[in-house]
Amino acid sequence: MDTVIGDEASVQFERLAILGVGLLGGSFALAARRAKLARRVVGYSKSPTTTRTALERGIIDEEADSALRAVHGADLVLLAVPVVSTGDLLKQLRHGLEPHALVMDVGSTKGNVVAAAQSQLGARQSQFVPCHPIAGKEKSGVLHAEAGLFDGKRVVITPLAANSDSFVDIATQAWESIGGVVSVMSPEEHDAAFAAVSHLPHLLAFSYVYALSSQPQGSAFLQLAGPGFRDFSRIAGGDPHMWRDVLQANRDEVLRQLQLYKQALAGFEAQIQQGNWSAVEALIRRASQVRQGWDAPASSDDEV
Amino acid sequence: MDTVIGDEASVQFERLAILGVGLLGGSFALAARRAKLARRVVGYSKSPTTTRTALERGIIDEEADSALRAVHGADLVLLAVPVVSTGDLLKQLRHGLEPHALVMDVGSTKGNVVAAAQSQLGARQSQFVPCHPIAGKEKSGVLHAEAGLFDGKRVVITPLAANSDSFVDIATQAWESIGGVVSVMSPEEHDAAFAAVSHLPHLLAFSYVYALSSQPQGSAFLQLAGPGFRDFSRIAGGDPHMWRDVLQANRDEVLRQLQLYKQALAGFEAQIQQGNWSAVEALIRRASQVRQGWDAPASSDDEV
Repeated sequence: MDTVIGDEASVQFERLAILGVGLLGGSFALAARRAKLARRVVGYSKSPTTTRTALERGIIDEEADSALRAVHGADLVLLAVPVVSTGDLLKQLRHGLEPHALVMDVGSTKGNVVAAAQSQLGARQSQFVPCHPIAGKEKSGVLHAEAGLFDGKRVVITPLAANSDSFVDIATQAWESIGGVVSVMSPEEHDAAFAAVSHLPHLLAFSYVYALSSQPQGSAFLQLAGPGFRDFSRIAGGDPHMWRDVLQANRDEVLRQLQLYKQALAGFEAQIQQGNWSAVEALIRRASQVRQGWDAPASSDDEV
Repeated sequence: MDTVIGDEASVQFERLAILGVGLLGGSFALAARRAKLARRVVGYSKSPTTTRTALERGIIDEEADSALRAVHGADLVLLAVPVVSTGDLLKQLRHGLEPHALVMDVGSTKGNVVAAAQSQLGARQSQFVPCHPIAGKEKSGVLHAEAGLFDGKRVVITPLAANSDSFVDIATQAWESIGGVVSVMSPEEHDAAFAAVSHLPHLLAFSYVYALSSQPQGSAFLQLAGPGFRDFSRIAGGDPHMWRDVLQANRDEVLRQLQLYKQALAGFEAQIQQGNWSAVEALIRRASQVRQGWDAPASSDDEV
């Protein structure tokens, strides 16, 4: 028989500061309440309207009027802002950070977040554990926050050399207590992998829809598009500001993946140009077998 | 009040010959029975096992041992073979074709099918009405045939100059009687549109999965892939033989779309290389708006 421990999280915090109370920040706050991970939640957002909405909906207990004030007294700090804003935010809050506080982020890229932490936090980078929960929805903003957003979802943690094991352990327990399934890898491994499986496909889908719609007959063609188009192009509907940030933050890995892709595409094109149809079929077969052999991880069903 | 006409098709055939009793041919046979579109169904396939299975399952009433014999006495003939086999098949059957028979196909490309009809049928091309039902499933073969496959699905008819209006009308009524929603356009318009919204995306998805899986870390990366990857790459799991045929049959339009796509991709890449992030965001915004403004036609929900 399994021993049931009870509903309470194995790790608990007195005061959770959410910096950036959007979809992810708001959902973390709700999930933390549900799991009794934190007793009290304070929120700060660049837009006071956002924090006010979060307060009115009971997502946070208190509004702070600056990042510096938000982290005062907090033993858990969650950064949930666009990745390119991480450095600025850390600069604003660093002098208020408690020495025992654990700081985590939720950014889709890790190399640039690590660089920001190293340059802004100095010795305090030991407190900063970079994280990327593979969770999201088509709609962003605090109004779409939900306590179950991280249930069964993969959370990648990319520890810094400066992190003590105990901070990494506490971060792991915190995510697990709100439903996450934690994987650990280096920031470099993370960024290479997500460039390949997420960031490049977004770039390709944006380019495809752009090319299609730039033709004189583009609108007429779109009328005939079916489910193949629907699925292939779905990610082209992503948020422009967020995806610009991701491409900027992970530029080098995205460009590296793009070169590999362009080589493969050129290989297909050359065989088609030359009419080597059995070679074309062999290339397709390879891709088709790989795709058919792939099983979607159950842990990331709703990632956008 | 609407006048209810009853269940019977407005057009009826004595004898329907299905050439190629696979998913589409078998489904047409089942749908034709359900709609009382045809009294008797004869089937021919290159593989006798396929025809035998269709007979045992009641999908057809009779097996024919050649295309020539299958069309003997038939007033409706449906070609449901790979598009590149159309010419060969027409050559086999042309001397058995009844002068009053309507001949239709189901191919995903139309220019090459029209050329095959013109070269193989001569004056009899007047009887051949090229069709493309936008319907399919992930699984092919007669075992997956179903009477409802064309329900609510778009069927593109690309009439020949030689077709009499009455043959085109009869073809339209036949598809409508089994649930199709008919659009009429030229073969050239058809092939340009489907190169853009279907054939090119398949080529891009094949190339993407090929590139991903050809990297030393490809398998490790795939483990981290989520729903964005799942949808974007779904069509890369398509049938290699069928897709080789489609790319071959619509080579020129696919290559033309590929050039437009490569220009768009190069535009994105240049802005990323140069760090023009507001330009990158503007490009993404354009694509995202187009994609968000697109409504999937209700008439092609299950197209593969």
